Amino acid sequence: MTDGKLPIGIFDSGVGGLTVLAAMQRRMPHEDMLYLGDTARLPYGTKSPDTITRYALQAASRLVAQRIKLLVIACNTATAAALPALRRHFAPLPVIGVVEPGATAAVESSRNGHVAVIATEATIGRGAYQEALQRLCPGIRVTAKACSLLVALAEEGWLNGRECESIVARYLNPIFAREDAPDCLLLGCTHFPLLLSPIRKVLGPDARIVDSADTTAQCVLDELASTGLLRIRKGKVQIRFFTTDDPERFARTGSLFLGASLPIKAVQLVDL
Amino acid sequence: MTDGKLPIGIFDSGVGGLTVLAAMQRRMPHEDMLYLGDTARLPYGTKSPDTITRYALQAASRLVAQRIKLLVIACNTATAAALPALRRHFAPLPVIGVVEPGATAAVESSRNGHVAVIATEATIGRGAYQEALQRLCPGIRVTAKACSLLVALAEEGWLNGRECESIVARYLNPIFAREDAPDCLLLGCTHFPLLLSPIRKVLGPDARIVDSADTTAQCVLDELASTGLLRIRKGKVQIRFFTTDDPERFARTGSLFLGASLPIKAVQLVDL
Repeated sequence: MTDGKLPIGIFDSGVGGLTVLAAMQRRMPHEDMLYLGDTARLPYGTKSPDTITRYALQAASRLVAQRIKLLVIACNTATAAALPALRRHFAPLPVIGVVEPGATAAVESSRNGHVAVIATEATIGRGAYQEALQRLCPGIRVTAKACSLLVALAEEGWLNGRECESIVARYLNPIFAREDAPDCLLLGCTHFPLLLSPIRKVLGPDARIVDSADTTAQCVLDELASTGLLRIRKGKVQIRFFTTDDPERFARTGSLFLGASLPIKAVQLVDL
Repeated sequence: MTDGKLPIGIFDSGVGGLTVLAAMQRRMPHEDMLYLGDTARLPYGTKSPDTITRYALQAASRLVAQRIKLLVIACNTATAAALPALRRHFAPLPVIGVVEPGATAAVESSRNGHVAVIATEATIGRGAYQEALQRLCPGIRVTAKACSLLVALAEEGWLNGRECESIVARYLNPIFAREDAPDCLLLGCTHFPLLLSPIRKVLGPDARIVDSADTTAQCVLDELASTGLLRIRKGKVQIRFFTTDDPERFARTGSLFLGASLPIKAVQLVDL
């Protein structure tokens, strides 16, 4: 019998998955969490599916060894390559990835059956979101666009201002200025929720934007609630961070992703 | 006795070093060249000096095995970490890195003894250019700035336009708008020569800009000329490319760095 008091485990190749942790913290403020960023081996996106699966199993094993009640793969590349392998390997532990919840929310959000998805070059190139959207809603029209500079913008902490908006506009305007434009934008990269403000400025306040970090957090909440593992009792919450490279750099870059309300303290270096 | 007809070997962690190859091709149009981009294992910048040295030795060995007359380390990170090891290991083969030629040219170019250097976070963080400048000209003032987004801009092929200029301005204006500003900008990243046009727009036409790709090419020319190994006879020139990951992607991204005058054909996949 799994103990509801156990923490949730989250892993990512770097700090991007912290937007998923932040979304989970907002929705489930009483849960303890363990976050592992495999920063020494990033980026996963340029590696082969076999290598990514091996890395994901190592990272997840580290979290499982500390006892967790649910595992979140807060990394699009690792979700696309390794979700089935992780589910098989750690069964009956629930394992939730970031692709499916975002795709489901986008299908529900779109009215005209045309969804735009933006992500890294690797995620778009491997078609993870395109496949998930087609599977959930056969015949749906998908416009997919790799937006590499948005990742760099987020990591640099340039989340507002003229430069930021002009870059977002250069990516999105060609997609949304057309007659038969999509009516929903799916953020298929964990870095992109940081750029919600310039994205809203470019698309307008009424745009339907699906944030896969947020929809993943909702999916985790539903899973815990349905299995009776949700913590609702108040108490001191513990969030711990692990990284495979420079803890100081992890804390510095990571704090951009978590914001001031959730400081990153005591990052522990681990070897996988 | 080394044969002047042998090709020059060049290696980099990715495609950035192609700006060095392009500069060499302009200055030494009759030389054959072999270029190896270790794209499967990039970025080198986040790895430890020991690992980088091991990778650099493997990449260089591959080129040396094909017989070359000179080796160029067209990668700032590998130069900083592995230049002495490569020189020892492959002696008496001449080995030239990208840091020293750029630093030398910057020292010669500056009139007020204050040089700005821009590079990746890893290069700036490890202080390779700062150390080289101090060694060449003790007491020189150096303002160093990591410009991560410029790398992403170059790889995305956004080399002109409003977005590009506003990003360059956001990095450079705080450095150059001061009373005691540097009078020379050293481009300490192989990607940055691609952004020379927006950099000139921001700094003005009279700015002293030292392109380390170009100064490295000059250094190679001097070395070959002084040892009698320069090829001056006209003939069919052969430039061959090797990569450790997706050759198609190498050709596509690489062509941004080489321009239309030097098409990338027949990229060969190698395993190191």
